[in-house]
This record gives sequence, C-alpha cells and structure tokens, in this order.
Amino acid sequence: MIIDVDNQDWTGGQIGNNDNSDDVKNIDLTKVHNLSGPIAVEGAEPGDCLVVDILDVTPFEKMPWGFTGIFELENGGGLFAREFRSRACKAIWDLNGVYASSRHIPGVRFAGVSHPGLIGTAPSPELLATWNERECGLIAAHATSVPPVAFPPEPIGAWVGQDLPNQTLEKIKKEGARTIPGREHGGNCDIKNLSKGSRCYFPVFVKGANLSVGDLHFSQGDVRTMSFCGAIEMAGIITFNTSIIKGGVEKFGLKQPIFLPSPVDPMYSQKLVFEGLSVDINGKQYYMDATVAYKQAALNAIAYLQKLGYTREQAYLLLSAAPIESHVGAIVDSPNACVTLAIPTGIFEHDILPKPEGLTKVNYGQCAIRSDGLL
Amino acid sequence: MIIDVDNQDWTGGQIGNNDNSDDVKNIDLTKVHNLSGPIAVEGAEPGDCLVVDILDVTPFEKMPWGFTGIFELENGGGLFAREFRSRACKAIWDLNGVYASSRHIPGVRFAGVSHPGLIGTAPSPELLATWNERECGLIAAHATSVPPVAFPPEPIGAWVGQDLPNQTLEKIKKEGARTIPGREHGGNCDIKNLSKGSRCYFPVFVKGANLSVGDLHFSQGDVRTMSFCGAIEMAGIITFNTSIIKGGVEKFGLKQPIFLPSPVDPMYSQKLVFEGLSVDINGKQYYMDATVAYKQAALNAIAYLQKLGYTREQAYLLLSAAPIESHVGAIVDSPNACVTLAIPTGIFEHDILPKPEGLTKVNYGQCAIRSDGLL
Amino acid sequence: MIIDVDNQDWTGGQIGNNDNSDDVKNIDLTKVHNLSGPIAVEGAEPGDCLVVDILDVTPFEKMPWGFTGIFELENGGGLFAREFRSRACKAIWDLNGVYASSRHIPGVRFAGVSHPGLIGTAPSPELLATWNERECGLIAAHATSVPPVAFPPEPIGAWVGQDLPNQTLEKIKKEGARTIPGREHGGNCDIKNLSKGSRCYFPVFVKGANLSVGDLHFSQGDVRTMSFCGAIEMAGIITFNTSIIKGGVEKFGLKQPIFLPSPVDPMYSQKLVFEGLSVDINGKQYYMDATVAYKQAALNAIAYLQKLGYTREQAYLLLSAAPIESHVGAIVDSPNACVTLAIPTGIFEHDILPKPEGLTKVNYGQCAIRSDGLL
Amino acid sequence: MIIDVDNQDWTGGQIGNNDNSDDVKNIDLTKVHNLSGPIAVEGAEPGDCLVVDILDVTPFEKMPWGFTGIFELENGGGLFAREFRSRACKAIWDLNGVYASSRHIPGVRFAGVSHPGLIGTAPSPELLATWNERECGLIAAHATSVPPVAFPPEPIGAWVGQDLPNQTLEKIKKEGARTIPGREHGGNCDIKNLSKGSRCYFPVFVKGANLSVGDLHFSQGDVRTMSFCGAIEMAGIITFNTSIIKGGVEKFGLKQPIFLPSPVDPMYSQKLVFEGLSVDINGKQYYMDATVAYKQAALNAIAYLQKLGYTREQAYLLLSAAPIESHVGAIVDSPNACVTLAIPTGIFEHDILPKPEGLTKVNYGQCAIRSDGLL
Repeated sequence: MIIDVDNQDWTGGQIGNNDNSDDVKNIDLTKVHNLSGPIAVEGAEPGDCLVVDILDVTPFEKMPWGFTGIFELENGGGLFAREFRSRACKAIWDLNGVYASSRHIPGVRFAGVSHPGLIGTAPSPELLATWNERECGLIAAHATSVPPVAFPPEPIGAWVGQDLPNQTLEKIKKEGARTIPGREHGGNCDIKNLSKGSRCYFPVFVKGANLSVGDLHFSQGDVRTMSFCGAIEMAGIITFNTSIIKGGVEKFGLKQPIFLPSPVDPMYSQKLVFEGLSVDINGKQYYMDATVAYKQAALNAIAYLQKLGYTREQAYLLLSAAPIESHVGAIVDSPNACVTLAIPTGIFEHDILPKPEGLTKVNYGQCAIRSDGLL
Repeated sequence: MIIDVDNQDWTGGQIGNNDNSDDVKNIDLTKVHNLSGPIAVEGAEPGDCLVVDILDVTPFEKMPWGFTGIFELENGGGLFAREFRSRACKAIWDLNGVYASSRHIPGVRFAGVSHPGLIGTAPSPELLATWNERECGLIAAHATSVPPVAFPPEPIGAWVGQDLPNQTLEKIKKEGARTIPGREHGGNCDIKNLSKGSRCYFPVFVKGANLSVGDLHFSQGDVRTMSFCGAIEMAGIITFNTSIIKGGVEKFGLKQPIFLPSPVDPMYSQKLVFEGLSVDINGKQYYMDATVAYKQAALNAIAYLQKLGYTREQAYLLLSAAPIESHVGAIVDSPNACVTLAIPTGIFEHDILPKPEGLTKVNYGQCAIRSDGLL
Repeated sequence: MIIDVDNQDWTGGQIGNNDNSDDVKNIDLTKVHNLSGPIAVEGAEPGDCLVVDILDVTPFEKMPWGFTGIFELENGGGLFAREFRSRACKAIWDLNGVYASSRHIPGVRFAGVSHPGLIGTAPSPELLATWNERECGLIAAHATSVPPVAFPPEPIGAWVGQDLPNQTLEKIKKEGARTIPGREHGGNCDIKNLSKGSRCYFPVFVKGANLSVGDLHFSQGDVRTMSFCGAIEMAGIITFNTSIIKGGVEKFGLKQPIFLPSPVDPMYSQKLVFEGLSVDINGKQYYMDATVAYKQAALNAIAYLQKLGYTREQAYLLLSAAPIESHVGAIVDSPNACVTLAIPTGIFEHDILPKPEGLTKVNYGQCAIRSDGLL
Repeated sequence: MIIDVDNQDWTGGQIGNNDNSDDVKNIDLTKVHNLSGPIAVEGAEPGDCLVVDILDVTPFEKMPWGFTGIFELENGGGLFAREFRSRACKAIWDLNGVYASSRHIPGVRFAGVSHPGLIGTAPSPELLATWNERECGLIAAHATSVPPVAFPPEPIGAWVGQDLPNQTLEKIKKEGARTIPGREHGGNCDIKNLSKGSRCYFPVFVKGANLSVGDLHFSQGDVRTMSFCGAIEMAGIITFNTSIIKGGVEKFGLKQPIFLPSPVDPMYSQKLVFEGLSVDINGKQYYMDATVAYKQAALNAIAYLQKLGYTREQAYLLLSAAPIESHVGAIVDSPNACVTLAIPTGIFEHDILPKPEGLTKVNYGQCAIRSDGLL
C-alpha cells in the first residue's frame, strides 16, 4: 500500500520566507519535532523488520521554498556555536524541480538529495526506559553544560497531538523521549542518503511498528546539523510503501536500521576535498576524535570559500545544505583522527578549482542576519 | 617531470605470503614507516603549494600480492582491540590487474582504490616543534594508556637511511616526529581517495618541499586502519609528477593539503548501509562522539556479514580492505553522533541483499590465524 | 522566469489505464503530437541561443500512471513491426515518486529519467521550406513504402489550436511540418538525457524563439521508439526557466541544440551488455548499418529476457521503457557496424546475471493484448 | 588460471613515436591485425560459454606511448574520409599511469578506458563459411566501391605465424576471414566497455575455444574507428583468466558475446552533448540512418571544438581517442534517426562550457601531419 503523508517543517512553521533571521533567534525549541504519525502497519510484530520504500519527498506545491539556519549559541547552537559565537543567520532557498538556489547565497545551484531527516518505528517500553536512563545519566554527569549535552522528557511544548485520554497524554509527555537524537529505531538520524528512492529496513519493537516521520529536507550535506538547522528544511509530502519481513530482526541481525540508498541521488563526480585532524583551532591535541577532525575539515573548507568571496556565515550555511560528502579517513593512526569533506565543484556557477593565478573573489553579499545587525 | 618511486611495504617486508599470522604477532613496530624520499622539488619555497599528480600506484610485477592484518592488543591493536581482545590475524590478497581476491576471505573480489597511505612534504623546524609539543602533552596526560595515545620521537628503529653525518642523523632520530599520524603536511592520512589519478595540493614548509611517500595500499575502506593494518598493504611503485604554485598557501588558504579525487575510482552504485550511534556495546551513552558511532556501525556490519557465514575476523579484515564508504551523518543531534558505513554489494559473488526468507549462510572457512591456534 | 506548462500525453488522451490494447490498435495518428506552446521569449531573435533549464517533469498528481505501446504494423509499426508482425500491445505503468512499475511486466521497478520527448524552437519559413523539400523528396523516392518513410504536411487532424484567423490556420495546416521526426530546432528527438535537471541550448530561428514542448516521458531507454511508443508516455507538467545568449548560434557554432545532462539521472552501475552487428536475422550482410546492428543487439537482449520468463512482447516493451543504454561501437570496421545495448541489472527484483547453473525462468504472465486475443 | 599475453600494436609496429604522419600514409594494411593466440582452453567444447575476466590491459613498461591516426582516403580512410578528403595525420600520446596526454593535442588529459579492441573465440568451419559467403556477396554487389565495402580472405600479408604444415598454412591464408570486422565470435568489435575489469561471455564454436586477442587500446571514444585508427593504439600486455560454463550458449541464448562492464571505467559526470540527424552535410535526407546521424553529431562537436581553437584534425583525433559517449536516440521517428555524442568536460584543462560571452579561442597548434605538409 502506498501512503502519502503531509508534514509540517520540523519547527511547525516558525520560520518565514523573509530576509532577516529574527525568527531563527526567537525560535521555541521546546516545540520540536513536529512529526506525522504514528502509523500502524497491519501484521507488524516485535522482532519483525518493517521494509519502507521511500518513493518521494517533495515540498508542498504552494510552498516551493525551504530554509537553513544558524542558531544562537544560547538556543540550539551549532557545530561552531562557541568558535564563532554564533548569532542567528538564515538562508531561504527557492525550490524549483530538482534544484535549489538562494538569494542569500548567490552563485550556487544544486540538485537536492531529498529525504526525511527523521523516520523511525516506535520503541517498546523497555527500549524507551533504556534511552531515558542512559541519556539522563549523561545529563547528570554534565549538569552545567551550555548547550546541554542531552534533553530529558519535557512536558512543555511536547507535541503529541492525538485525541488521547488525559492520563495517557500526561504519561507520554512525562516519559516520552524527545526526538532530537537518532536512536536504535532510526529517528532523527539526518542521513542524507535515506533519500527518495531508498529502501529502509527498520526493526519493529511494538505491535503495528508505529512508524513516525517528519523533518523533511530538500537537501543536506553529510553533516546536516553543522549549523544546527543545516539542511534545507521544508514542509511537504513524503510518499512510501511498506511491507513486513517476519522475524527480520533475527534474520538480519538488526540492531539498528539498515538501508539501500537511492539510485537517483545527484551525481557530481568532480569534488574538491579538504582534510581535518583531531587538533583544534587552538592547537590542542585530541586523541582520535573524529568530531574534532571533522570540524577542522569544515573550517578549512570555510576558509577556502571565503577566498572565493563568501562570508563565513554563507559558507557555513552552504556546507550544511549542499550535497557535501564527508568521510572518516583514519581513526587508528594515534593520536590523529583524519576526516575529509568533499565539495562538488559542479554546484558553483564559477570555476572554483585552484589555479596558478589564485582564486577570483566575487562579492556575494551576505545571508539573512538579525534585524539588529548583530553577527 | 614524471617520477617513478619504488616503495617497500610500510613494515619493510616483515609480513610474508603464507597462511599463518605469526609474523603479524611478532612485528617490530619501531621500524615503521619505511618511506621513500625526501625528494626535493626545484624552486619550491615555504609558502608555495606543491601540486602532485598521482599517476599510478601499482604493485611490483614480481610481487602481485598484499596483506591485511589485525594486530594484537599489546602491539598496535586496532579499532576493536579491546572489544575483541584481538589476536594477530591476516589475509593475503592476490592482486590481478584491477582486482584483489583472497584465499583467506573467499567469495569476494573487488577493484582497488590504489593510493599511497602516506604522502607529505617536510615540516619546518617550527612546525615540527609544535607537533612534538602537542603530542608529548597528550602522552603526558595519559601516561599509562595501553596502547599508548601517541608516540614521541624514538631513535630505536628509526628509519632515516641516507648517508648523513652522524650528528645530523642523531638529531633527526632524537627529534624527528614518528610517522604514525597524519598531520598538517599530509603524512599518514590513509585517505583512500588520494588514489591514482588524483591531484593533490600540499603546503610547502621548507625549501625544496621535500616530499616523502610510502605505505602503498592496493585498496582500503574509508577507515583503513580499523584493524590497524587495514588496507591491502603492498610493496610497489608510485608514479607522479609535480608542479609549483607560488604563494599557494596564501592563495588557497592552505592549512592542510586539499585534493581532487581521481575519475577512475571503482564505481559500485548499489550499497548496503549500516548505521551506528554514540552508544557503545555496553550501552554507555557518549556525547556526540563520531568515533564511538563509527565503531557501532562497523559492529552492525560485522554482525550482518557473520549471518552470511564470514567469521568475525574475516568480516573485520574485509571492512578494512574493501572499498567501504563511511559518512558522518549527524553530530549536532545531542547526544548522539550518527555515522554510516556502506558496503558495495557488487564485490560479493553471492547476492547479500536482505531477503524475506532470510540470508543464506555459506562456510567461508577462516582467515590466517596464529600457528598456536589462538584467536 | 520559471514557467510551468501542462501537457497532455502525445496522443491527446487516446490510451486508457486498462488491461487490453484495443485503444492502441485503434489510435488515430493524424492527431499527434499534442504539444503545449508556442511560448514567445521576450528579447529572443534569430541567431540567438535560447537557454532552457528543465527543472522538473512530473505526472499530474491525479494521473500517476503512464503507458508504453507496441503499434500495429499498419498503424505506426515499431522497430520490429515487420520481423514480429506486430499486433497492438501495451503496458500500463504505475508512477510512484521516483519509481515506475507495471502490473503488465512484473518483477521490475526502476527510477525514471523523466524528460520531454519533444521540445524545440520554431523554424523560420526558410528552414520549414527546407524540411518540407527534403522530406517530400524522400517520400517521392519511396512512394509505396509501408509504413511510409516520412509524413508530409497534413491538414487532417492537425493540432494548431490557437484562436487564429481562418486563413492563417489553413496555411499552417497545409504547410506546417508534422512533428514526428526531430529536426534542427530540436523537436521530437526522444533523447532521454534531456531530462529534468538538464540545461539545453537551442538555436533561435524566429523572433521570440517560440518554444513548444510536449510528449512527456516518465522514462525511456536509449532508443525510446523501439516499439514506436516506447517510452512511458504520460500527461503532466514540465517546469523550466529560460534565458538568452545573444548571438549564441555563431558563438557556439550551433547547427542543432546542444545540452548538459542532468546530475540526477538514475545511476545503475552494473549492466549486462548485448552486442549486435549489421547482419540481419536472415543472415543478410549490410554495410556499416548501425540501425541494423542496433536491432540485432535488441533481439539478443530480448532472447535473454525470454530465458528469464518474459514474453517477447514484455521484453520489447521493457527495453523501450526502462533506462537502457545503447552505444554505437564501431562503424568503420567494414562491413560490420557494432552496437551495444546495456540493461541495468538493478531494475530487476531477481538476480539476472549469467550463472553456471543457467537462468531461472519465472512465469511473468503477459502484457495487455488485444481483446480479440491476437498477438 | 591467470594468463598474461603480450601484444604488438595492431599494425605490428609500423607507426613510430615521432612528429610526422608519413608512416600512417604509407602503412601496409594487408598485414593487420597482429594478434596473439589462439589459446586453447582445456575442456571447452562447442556450445559452451567461455567466461573471460579481463584483469588488466597495460602498455609495455618500456613503451609508455600510443598513437591515433587519420588514414588517407585511398588507404583505409575513416568516417569522414570523403567529406574531409582525408590526408594522413596522427597524434602521439604519452601514457602515464591512468592518464593519456599528447603533445599534438595540448590542453587535454584523460583517464583511459583500456581494453582489447579485438578479442574472440575461433569460428567453426561452418560459421567461417557463412562469414565468407555473406561478405563476398556484399563485395560482389558493390564491386567498385572505394574504399571497399568488405575484405575477402587474402593470402598476402596474412599473419598466421605458427609453425604449421605448409598445406594447413596455405588453407588458412586462403580461407581464413580477415579480422577487420567484429562478428558472432566477438572479434574486432572495438567496444570500449570491454575494458579491464570487465567479465565477458563468449560462445564456443570449436573444441578448446581458441581465444585470440590483440589491438590493445589505452583509450577510445564510443566510436573508436571514427578516424579509422581512432583509439589510442598501443603495444602491451593483457591479463585475464578463464572459466567455462557448460552448455552456456543454450543456457543464455548466446548468439554473440555478452558482457558486464568494469567498475573502474573513468567517471566524468559532466558532459556536453551534441545531436545529429540523418540529414547529411549536403542537406540530403536519409531514412532512419543512424550512421548518417552519428556523423552529423560528430561534425557538430568538431565545429564546437574548432571554436575553442582546435584544428579540424585535432578535434577528429580527440573525439576518436577520448572517452566520448555516443547514444542512439530515436530510430523510429521517421524519417530522422537521432544520435547524440557526449564529450566529458573534465578532460579539458580549460572550462569548455558555453558562456554568455562566447568561447575563448586558444592556439593549440596542429597534430602531426605529412612531411610534405599536405592536409
């Protein structure tokens, strides 16, 4: 059976198609994610594998636009929240068929790898308890961290939405895991290759599987969440069909979802690749830390894009939204992890390759910033 | 000018084409890496960019084989050294033209992404001092770690090799950085996409650039070093040419090398993808740790390969040696990093896709293990 | 400016979503093609180049289906009309997001290379005169051929459609070239790679360029018209934007359109390839005839698909509709032209590769045939 | 069993690495092809399928160069022999690892799709008789054609080579088919995708299969033989292994070879595509003639390359030697066949894409021409 599901964007419509970032600055993050579901699949039982063919992910015909945001350090942050003392910024993207382009980041146009940022089955009570226990443990161990290291169940702003008995609703709000991280059921994994055309195999934990989906992205780099809200976020429709493989968890050794990527992801064969090591910008040496290494690769790429004329904020947004690839190179060559970040050259209007004569700097203006002008 | 450089394998020939892993167990790691160079490039000066076109990487005609090894916990280890209490294992690969296959891991054959695991310019004295300072700092902070977190300059086994005045030789042995990790000059980055056909841009730190190269790999997954010696290591010849872009460091904002991948890397479009989160096998929650997440994705893939009939050791070696792709998914969705690992299905003789009826288990024997039979 | 254009299917809705091929048998071919346009582009003048970015090609939301037909020898025919004494057959395809599948050809599912079969600028009166002269010359030289070698202007069934003065309308019907073949302006070229995401450069022959478009295909093999109506024909919407390069005809030496294919065409890297020579099925030798060679490659592929259980008609329809690739190999090795036809293996539910034990034959039923049962 | 076979170039060494084309002008074509073999495969019998894995195709280490030639109208000709009144021209290519470049065609560098131009099993006496009959029939019907439409068995220059009884030798020379065209056994198909890494399935016609191979190409476009000697011809080594599928001809319906292309062919995703119709340069209309259409696409591409500064001869040679793709578009849209020719943009040093300001013309000199200066 083929199912069409309408989705709000992940913020529930808090961000507008306009030219300042005040809405990003003032966003209420207690309200996220706005998901669709849960959808019960007849015949699915714990231990089965739910096969989901993602057939299409498309913006609403009347809303052919999306957004990418950098969040304030105090409200969500982003990968470089501290390094950049991030203020709210955003880019609005026009979505035209297979392509995205933005008045806030001129000179680029790319085909989207459209996908749901969040899709997953429902946890069993036991699995939910495990999540809450391990995450609350982490919170307890880093109680004063800003931004927080994790988010416990939180009734305020919880989006449950169905017409449920009051007692049930309260229980869900009080015990339900917040949807920010991906977990064993899938969830907010932000994997760009879970794109339209892909086939996904989810473990089933409860009768009916109870699939939820949302946080549609028109496009995203490998590390969507670089700028916290790094994909091209959109409202739209996801189309999929489902089938069940009985006993699939045992048959395939499924601890988490597995999937087959789509044959129609954009193909940009020429790429310019940046490297990063697990030594931070202050020269501090980390031990095999791929996250630190990834950040350095991203910083090296941002520096290059600045040589071409993009602002730091534009570059940061672009790396989050475009079909960038990032690979984990080495993580046994003590003490340095090495991570690469590859930018497809074909998304740029101009030739960005290194030339003996150097790079040509173009004035691309700036992305949307706060109305008070703070950066 | 086109240059052909002969290279020993990274161990200097300590591993043989045979059917037990005693040589891996007994390897002397003080002697690595065996590199070729340094090669001075006329006209290169600090601040320039050295362009290196890697034209070919090929085994010696008389040695058409390579090896992949799992190292003992006490001697090098590997990504799962502790989890698996690793004992020495290895696979010997026959290299026939574009393909590798192994009597120790039957049922697979794949085209190689041949590349130098290690290539880089020489550091300036200042840069070298920075390396030694930050790495020795890390060592001091984790003095009792097994395996060690990093390796200081070490005269024993140091491979300098040129006919140098004694005093110079001693100084180099005493102060020269060991070549285990990649650093700002390139070095042991183990990036599979630095493959034959790629164009690399290195920062130059000293007059002549002084390029060194070695640790040739016939093939490798994205995280070569999973099993410590994870690539298909080989002895052979690298062919490249060089040119110089004056002032390239400033022109391109080069803090580390950048590169353009080759147009001839193997193309396997269908892949089966595994996910991993930053929760370890004991259920411990980590904060945004991409390394932990990568390890879980690898463990999930190993579990799947075991369902197909490969032993844990064969699966571990295969993921290290074959053209596996690994992407960093999300690292802002607190607290979970999410990493994916993609196995090309076309490298297997049999269909490995999930089927409603489950997976067919085949007996593939075992890889080469220690002659005392310990695993 | 971005333009959305609605299009009927090329037959103007003569084929229905049902299970017999009587509508194909009885089709009125005087009425084709049903196109949309002409659209005048402000500022375009003869000698300019009209740049068209094809942003999307999608079926109407309410008509998520398409058709592929084999036409009767006496009415359109097809590449094998004579060899197969073709009777009307068809397959209805369900279009779900990126995928097409058919109840009439079970066991396959593929991502579409959606494109307009026909798109082109308007000819100048001089160019039109050239077309009519050369084609009428060919008709005169082969006056008795069945099917005819070409089609002269024909008032009956001509689809002009605008509210024009009677005299103008009559002149157009009497002199306007029929749209069956592609010509110097583009037109009915049936090039699958003119797909959504591609950028096309058309020569402009009249003021305003007068672009017309239609004959939308959800998918097609390299030689769409193998079964005459070989693509997955559909009604739907094409979205594009336009710009002008002044004097582009001279700047680029444009005698015909040139284009850049889309980065989002389906990627099926594994293919099974068949060869064909310019020797026909009766053993007759032709001199360097790529058309004859192409037909032999197609026949060889059909024979293989029959071994898998498809009927000749299903195989014929499938090769026309799926993303098959065909290359011209050699056409100087006298006397044989050599042409290849590549079938992506990933579109099949089962493994179709040659196996030592032979191929497994599955019963796939039959496509839609005539209600009188004639084949 | 893995087999290494040494091959002369197809001319037997008649062309030199120098800067004029006199050797091309004076070539003795009675002596071609110089092949290696036949190689008998134990156990192969008529009706079996011989599986050949092409593992490597590489130039001799001491001869890292190859050539591409345009032949004189009177001696071999080429696709445009008449249109261009072709005089002998050539380009010498330097082969460095994966790349080819030429002093005679500056500004391009590309990765090779290395393959044997000619590989095939031996015909049975019956099959040989069929070949001779049908080809001699064609010759008889076009007795005065220049160049000839086909080549009958010809003792002069025949290259049989083995130490055979005189009577046998004479019989072979008198009855053996010349190797210019590809036939049902494979042979001189000049299919670039039969490249290193591919797996080929040949029908077996005689006991032992008797495989012959030669005419190694470092690279070639889809229609190698455009300039008659259009590939980068080289002397070198082919490595392959063989296995047998009993009864494979019947199992797979093999009338001609089928094959799986290599996963390591160069990937240049961005291409500029030219179209051609079956109307020749004099405006003559042909009926569905894909060969005429192909020639027009090639002429359109040559015109474009001339705008960039290449001479007609350089463009002609480049299209023959580089990894150009050509697809048969439509051959049912009476009366026009439509063929496309795609040039990868990534092989050029400069950006060749159409720009609003037009194309930049560079002086690339000329290829090697006759010492008497005639063109």
